[in-house]
Parts: sequence; C-alpha cells; structure tokens
Amino acid sequence: MTARRHRGLFVTFEGTEGSGKSTQLRLLARRLRRRGVPLLVTRQPGGTPAGARLRRLLLHAGALDPRAELLLMFADRRQHLTESIEPALASGLVVLCDRYTDASRAYQGAGRRLGEELVDLLHARFCALEPDRTYLFDCPPRIGLARLAARAGKDRIEREALAFHRRVRAAYLDRARREPGRFVVLDGTRPPGELASTVAADLDALLASR
Amino acid sequence: MTARRHRGLFVTFEGTEGSGKSTQLRLLARRLRRRGVPLLVTRQPGGTPAGARLRRLLLHAGALDPRAELLLMFADRRQHLTESIEPALASGLVVLCDRYTDASRAYQGAGRRLGEELVDLLHARFCALEPDRTYLFDCPPRIGLARLAARAGKDRIEREALAFHRRVRAAYLDRARREPGRFVVLDGTRPPGELASTVAADLDALLASR
Repeated sequence: MTARRHRGLFVTFEGTEGSGKSTQLRLLARRLRRRGVPLLVTRQPGGTPAGARLRRLLLHAGALDPRAELLLMFADRRQHLTESIEPALASGLVVLCDRYTDASRAYQGAGRRLGEELVDLLHARFCALEPDRTYLFDCPPRIGLARLAARAGKDRIEREALAFHRRVRAAYLDRARREPGRFVVLDGTRPPGELASTVAADLDALLASR
Repeated sequence: MTARRHRGLFVTFEGTEGSGKSTQLRLLARRLRRRGVPLLVTRQPGGTPAGARLRRLLLHAGALDPRAELLLMFADRRQHLTESIEPALASGLVVLCDRYTDASRAYQGAGRRLGEELVDLLHARFCALEPDRTYLFDCPPRIGLARLAARAGKDRIEREALAFHRRVRAAYLDRARREPGRFVVLDGTRPPGELASTVAADLDALLASR
C-alpha cells in the first residue's frame, strides 16, 4: 500500500455476482448521510460521463477481446480517479466505490485468465491509489447466481459460466488473505441487517481512528 | 521487430495533422485494388464496431485524462488486432492501416508528455505486432494545420496548440531514425502524385520480395 496523501477515506465494495455488495453499499451510505458525513457514492465502471459510455460498451457490446476489456476497465478507472475520486478525497470526503482494481484482478485476471501480474502492472502504472478499506462480500457462485436469476436482463459478464465465477471468487479470497490489513471479508449469505451492522461498526472505528 | 508469423503484409500510414497520409492511403488502395491484390483498408482508432464507439468517445468527449486516453487507444488497438487485422494477415491480405502504435508514441507519448516508455510497455504487453512497412508523411505543423483549417469541424486532438503538434512531429521523426528498416519517410509538402509514385514503387518492391 502507498502512503495516504489524502484527507478523506477511500472505501471499496467487492464481491461476486449476487453477493449483496451493492445493497450493503446503499445501506452504509444511508447511515453515513443520516450522520452528516460528507460522502461520494460511486461505482466502476461508469462513475463519470465518459465512463457511463464505457460501461455500456463493456457490459452490452458483442464479443470483446479479454485484453481490450481489461484496458477499457483501466481507462474508466483512470478517468474516474482524476475526475471524481481524487478530488473528493482531497476535500475530505468519504468515498464509497462499488468495485475497483480488485474486481479487475478477480474478473479479468482470474476469470478471463489474463493473470494477476498484468492487472497489477496496469494498476501500478495508471492508478496506484489503494483503498483504505475494502469490504469483500463472499458468496458461493451457485447461490449468488440464483439470486440474480430472479432479476431480468443479465449483462455480458453475469452470463459467464459457473467455472468463471468460481475463479473470480477464489481470486478475491486469495487477495484478501494477502492483504488482511485492508480487507474485511463478510459472508454474503448472512442476513443483510447483520452484515450492515458489522460494516457500520468497522467503519465507525476507522473514522474514529483518523 | 518480431519475426513475421503471418502470410500477409501489414502496412501503416502515419503523420501529423494535414500531412496527406489518408489521401495517400486511398491512392495506394485504389492502385492495389486495380491490380487485384486482396486488401483490407482500415484505421485506428475506429476499425471495429466497438472501436467506432471508442473513436467518438476519444475525439469528441469532454476533458479526458491523458492516461485514460492512452488506455482507450490501446483498447481499440487490441480489439482491432484480434477482430480484424490478425485474421486478415493470416489469410494473406495486404492490410493498409491509417495510424497504429507509432501514433500513440507520437501523440500520447510525446504530445501529451506521457513518455514513450509507457507506450512501448502497453504495445509490448497488449499488441506486439510490428508493421512490415510504415510510411511516415512528414509536414511542418504550420502547413498541415493550415490545410486542416480549410475543413470544417476539427476534433479534440486537431485543436491542440502548435507546440503539441511540434512534439508529435519530432517524435515521429525520431522513431523513424531508430527504425530505418521499417520506416519510409516522405515529405508531405511534395505534390500528391509524386508521393503516390514513390509509395507505389516501394510497395511493389516489398510485394515482389515476399
């Protein structure tokens, strides 16, 4: 991890499909807003106007080359950092971001088998900002995908085979084991209210320690 | 340069704004078609359906972070190689491509001052296919931009300051000096018919030597 140069707090939410991470992000955001904590709630890909166009291209285009997909993810990420995340952190906001580089490590590095080294290289050369905290919502793919099945209209990545999602999950857990100071791993099959309390308690401690 | 593994011929056209490269590409394509040479005429960015969407984003979006721009250029390039250029070369076609990695070295590396090393890194890790021949149309920016002024609707890159275009030109010439076996440098201020004859003679010799 690089030294913190900002005054805000950079918090990312990660997890496999249907793990409940986006729900938990919304619950935490609501709680922080009620307490008057200055907040930016955002996501990758798609957190800027250019990124919104990239997100449509990434999720709904025809066959994309896996390496082209990885470069698009990092183009979105770089633009998002410059235009939105870095200024928010510089002015002291808490940034809650739905997916960041760990998602590329898991989905493009492991899921698409491009290798974590290639993802780490792009991260080091083009982003290099580490989250202060990452909440990883872990969930067996069979359960997560069954939750998704209830929704209409899956995107290009959600439609991948079960083996793909298993590689994604294993890569997330491996990363969390290697960076225990940054990650908090949560069991995505637990009740949402219980998960929300755990996240809230951890974040309160983080905010208090600043 | 890597060893040639394909049966076709990969020819790129490079040059600063208003240097006449696209006109020369069209003239060569017409000549080769008349002779019945199997041909793919294409360009970067924008040589695939996904690339066409990226091209609009690159040339007409608002402020783009320079590193995000570079990543988008390489996403387009990687997709273009997989979907279009590599299959064409494998089936023996002559590929005429308007801009390739040399353009990123010149525009993003030198023009936007990201450094050639970063561009070379992306090329090595994501593309790695070298052109068999590159025609560089060299032209003082003041002359090239005056030609463009006659056209309506300049794009985001064409509107850059003169100093930017001077850095681009110098980087192109520097690269050509370092790879004399691949580059043919042409004086873009010479009459189009004369330039077309020089290019045609060079390409005939290349085709004959295969």
